Amino acid sequence: MKITILGSAAGLPTVDRGLPAIIVEVEGELLLFDCGEGTQRQLMRAGVSLCRKMRVFITHLHGDHLFGLPGLIQTMNLMNRVHPLGIFGPPGLKKFLEETTISTMPEPVFDLTVHEVKEGEIALGRQYRVIGALAEHSVPNIAYKLIAGESSGKFNSNKAEALGIPEGPLRKDLKSGKPITLEDGRHIDPADVLGKPVRGISMVYSGDTKPCSSVIKLAEDADLLIHEATFTHDLGDRASAEGHSTAEGAAGVAKSAKVKKLLLTHISARYPDGKVLEDEAKNIFASSEVVEDLKNYDLKI
Amino acid sequence: MKITILGSAAGLPTVDRGLPAIIVEVEGELLLFDCGEGTQRQLMRAGVSLCRKMRVFITHLHGDHLFGLPGLIQTMNLMNRVHPLGIFGPPGLKKFLEETTISTMPEPVFDLTVHEVKEGEIALGRQYRVIGALAEHSVPNIAYKLIAGESSGKFNSNKAEALGIPEGPLRKDLKSGKPITLEDGRHIDPADVLGKPVRGISMVYSGDTKPCSSVIKLAEDADLLIHEATFTHDLGDRASAEGHSTAEGAAGVAKSAKVKKLLLTHISARYPDGKVLEDEAKNIFASSEVVEDLKNYDLKI
Repeated sequence: MKITILGSAAGLPTVDRGLPAIIVEVEGELLLFDCGEGTQRQLMRAGVSLCRKMRVFITHLHGDHLFGLPGLIQTMNLMNRVHPLGIFGPPGLKKFLEETTISTMPEPVFDLTVHEVKEGEIALGRQYRVIGALAEHSVPNIAYKLIAGESSGKFNSNKAEALGIPEGPLRKDLKSGKPITLEDGRHIDPADVLGKPVRGISMVYSGDTKPCSSVIKLAEDADLLIHEATFTHDLGDRASAEGHSTAEGAAGVAKSAKVKKLLLTHISARYPDGKVLEDEAKNIFASSEVVEDLKNYDLKI
Repeated sequence: MKITILGSAAGLPTVDRGLPAIIVEVEGELLLFDCGEGTQRQLMRAGVSLCRKMRVFITHLHGDHLFGLPGLIQTMNLMNRVHPLGIFGPPGLKKFLEETTISTMPEPVFDLTVHEVKEGEIALGRQYRVIGALAEHSVPNIAYKLIAGESSGKFNSNKAEALGIPEGPLRKDLKSGKPITLEDGRHIDPADVLGKPVRGISMVYSGDTKPCSSVIKLAEDADLLIHEATFTHDLGDRASAEGHSTAEGAAGVAKSAKVKKLLLTHISARYPDGKVLEDEAKNIFASSEVVEDLKNYDLKI
């Protein structure tokens, strides 16, 4: 799982930090989380082709998280993109895209589908799945969890052979975790023929949120949590009033969820050096780091 | 007149060329021509504060020329901008801005006015005026001419005194170019009391257009013409069909209009090196140059 931060600013970008966007590559497929203004050029700078298989996940309908979407679609169009593009996000996304794009560009040449979603299982890929939970912001914000490479355990054909399980639907049931009964009445449990389940790797991206229990639950035992940390703790009241987190608050979420690593993003322009936020978080959760634009943070299965 | 190219790509940006935008500074006031995605960060890179006096002129309602506008307004809002912002552009601009911004950001804290315009005199500043002409593109496109520092000639108080012209409305009439009649019946011509008129300096920005007579007329004797040159001449048929210009075509406009200098912009991503376009233009109009992003092209009065 190759994670590249494309933009890590809060609402107001700077020369160093672009508007929110994260591109994740899983086994050749691309998942883009948020699409702030300038994302298409950041993708180019990161060496990611806009013609590749991609799905987009928008956390919430504030401009700084989605104003890059119309331009991304227009450029994909000019590139004669072939692969379909699925865009997932909160209700209202479809109307926004229709209104911004209809008058300003021709009909997309590729298949563009907008999925208005809320929480639960949101998307399934060949090698991954994405689930969502509602975080706590001033407008509905979906925190996304991406789980890749998980499997219920490798099927042991030798064992199946020895147990006399015929090839076909019975084996398929076992592979998908269902117990079966053979013609001779013997019950076979999936554990009898499957190897150790593979947990896979997982990352959670909070979008904009106060520290909240739904993100803690979503991030439980995740390998990586990318959480917003707009302010330092001295601006805690403002953070809370605006539905944002301090670095301390984000670290508290990471600690409660027992994640392996915390990346802090959505950094207010008032902090030209993010170290002050990193230090604050490290006091509570040691494995904390403030992200940099165009830096890679990879997770190995 | 300090001119900085913020973006010089055609519809599809590259790592080197951002989407169309040009910022011009005239005696401390800013004029932004087009506002492609990413303009706000390009302004920051150019060291231009988003809180300063500014007017925006949009050539046409294609996404690559205006998708930076909602984000620019949002950022100005977050910066608590005080100065009003006037945005000029073709009919439909108001609706686009209402639809993109209303649902995604709070009401601007500054005075935002959208002027839907077509041609003729479009805006008057303290030290400049902007006039427009309809170019020839697939949708209505306004080419803008900015004239700065022009004056009808300095008023010579000594001469006025010697001629016995009383202070007050009669002198005001002469200053504005109107002849007057004194109480004693003498006729006074403005030329009798005014110095040599100052022509000022002028630049024309074409937006997206085929080579056309209205841009030639608008650009007549201008100091600078910034004209689109999307393609080389071998793609002339395509340029014409899509309402664009070749470098050759742009140079022809510059030659016919007798401008002093031609800058070529709106460069298709198929030309990683713009020199091929520059050479093509130079064959027809020697003082041609392909622009670079963030480079300054200054005009002195």
